[in-house]
Amino acid sequence: MTGTAREIVLARPVVSLPIAADFTLVDRLLTPPEGEGWLKVRPLFLSLDPYIGARIRGRHMGERPAVPGESLPGFCVAEVEESRVPAFVAGDRVVVEAGWTDVAWVRSEDARSVSTDIAPSLHLSVLGMPGLTAWAGMTQLAKTGAGDVLTVNAAAGTVGGVAGQIAKNLGGHAIGIAGGPGKCALVVDRYGFDACADYRRDDWERQLASAVGDGSTIHFENVGAGQLAVGIRMLKLYGRVVLCGLADHYHADVGPALTAIGPIVGKRAQVFGLVVYDFYSRWAEWTALAEPWVKAGRLTIAEDIGEGLEAAPRQIERLMRGENVGKTLVRIER
Amino acid sequence: MTGTAREIVLARPVVSLPIAADFTLVDRLLTPPEGEGWLKVRPLFLSLDPYIGARIRGRHMGERPAVPGESLPGFCVAEVEESRVPAFVAGDRVVVEAGWTDVAWVRSEDARSVSTDIAPSLHLSVLGMPGLTAWAGMTQLAKTGAGDVLTVNAAAGTVGGVAGQIAKNLGGHAIGIAGGPGKCALVVDRYGFDACADYRRDDWERQLASAVGDGSTIHFENVGAGQLAVGIRMLKLYGRVVLCGLADHYHADVGPALTAIGPIVGKRAQVFGLVVYDFYSRWAEWTALAEPWVKAGRLTIAEDIGEGLEAAPRQIERLMRGENVGKTLVRIER
Repeated sequence: MTGTAREIVLARPVVSLPIAADFTLVDRLLTPPEGEGWLKVRPLFLSLDPYIGARIRGRHMGERPAVPGESLPGFCVAEVEESRVPAFVAGDRVVVEAGWTDVAWVRSEDARSVSTDIAPSLHLSVLGMPGLTAWAGMTQLAKTGAGDVLTVNAAAGTVGGVAGQIAKNLGGHAIGIAGGPGKCALVVDRYGFDACADYRRDDWERQLASAVGDGSTIHFENVGAGQLAVGIRMLKLYGRVVLCGLADHYHADVGPALTAIGPIVGKRAQVFGLVVYDFYSRWAEWTALAEPWVKAGRLTIAEDIGEGLEAAPRQIERLMRGENVGKTLVRIER
Repeated sequence: MTGTAREIVLARPVVSLPIAADFTLVDRLLTPPEGEGWLKVRPLFLSLDPYIGARIRGRHMGERPAVPGESLPGFCVAEVEESRVPAFVAGDRVVVEAGWTDVAWVRSEDARSVSTDIAPSLHLSVLGMPGLTAWAGMTQLAKTGAGDVLTVNAAAGTVGGVAGQIAKNLGGHAIGIAGGPGKCALVVDRYGFDACADYRRDDWERQLASAVGDGSTIHFENVGAGQLAVGIRMLKLYGRVVLCGLADHYHADVGPALTAIGPIVGKRAQVFGLVVYDFYSRWAEWTALAEPWVKAGRLTIAEDIGEGLEAAPRQIERLMRGENVGKTLVRIER
């Protein structure tokens, strides 16, 4: 049976920071595909993440730019309405890249089954790709443990916020870096970091150094070259550095991100490049660690929710401008 | 008893690449020190190494520049002529930083005892600090083993040459990078590398890529930012990078060494800063591994020997210009 889908697509090619006016809402005929292996899904929440700006522009992992009219990248948590595969039944909950839409047919092998006994939006944040990213960097690369002193930036966001909570839950200390007093308060009061430096203040490096004391043991980089240099400067000898994201360089028209080699040698640092795709096969390990923490109130995230599919363009613009507080989501109307 | 020492010192402050004319030979009164704990040593060979140029200029590990007239940095292998400490007797062989001189009094705690059943000059090269550096980077940081594919630059020099021979002796492959056909032939024919790319050739990156095949697993950097970028490009995913030396940046008036962050992330590389000082306490581990290799002919180094203390200024200039072939030494006349 043919139905209608509402979908947000690009109205025009995007060459810089995406803004709300770059997008448009369209209605589409939703034609059921032929054959087996398909799921019809109804998204509950759409996830908007920093890499999406870069993917839309064709500046992420060598992928081509997004074309006006085609489905946009981004994961949703959705309910299965109809299944053409034995592994799923109607009512199952999945995470899948369905486009910015209220209904879609997707291949079942692209859908990841998630539990229904946890708030659905968390499958896009702490239990989703950003959370997995933080877990991979902290536990698999930096191998964090008791006594570690972490500095992490974009600390009010999901990757940074979860990284710090992992450090704390495993017996270490966490010092965040975030933009503005509101975000810094969130990081300390709600996420439980030991301190948070506000990089919009002129004296933020002194603030950070004072919180770090005699040096950090891990720096987790989500932002770019400028803050990375500061993070390396704060390290103790033999510190570890996780290179995770370069959000500043994704969406700003700045040159390539460069880092000085001398300080890495001087600190005898160990620097790890992190690409979360490598850890998809190990999602269950993170879920097993994180779900009890979530249920015990030891792992949380603020959510910046836009109501209705029409809010998606405004929400991505907020995210790109750093105006979001916590995980950026769009709640899809039913 | 007071004697005379001949010594090479700076004739003037050095602000760029040191050249022979920056140095002068002086005669000094050699006054025996007071008290216990001293050794009078007669150097056999003086070691000249790339870091010395940077140390003289005050561009190495934050040390101050060398002052005209004072003793210059650099290790020698020497015979003990007189000992004021029970742990040493006349005739013992030691490695110690005595200055560029033919006789000196040194503190016994600064002298490292070395075996007399191996050619003395090797205690300054494969069994000395450059060899220890290669061992630390290859076995302790990159944890090399069977099947590894190493790229290493300055491969005709001691650090690079030993790094490659360690890779080969532990079951891996070694591909060198060196300047000119003579050095490349040395690397392959005498050190036993699988191949060597000549960076003076326009097509050296193609040459290197062809030798590397489907990717390297370790890159060992001795030169600087330009060759590092190429080394990272040749890596397989999850490759390791040892940041050991930045010879290009020590003595050339170039800006600080920078490296692009994106390729480190894309390759999921692990990057290790190496400072050999950290491994001084573990010299016996390297000696235990290396001495049998030396005796079996599986670990060797070309030597670029200047005859007589007067040759030291010419030898450091040769080294700074990259004109040396193999380990740069000065044989001290007796």
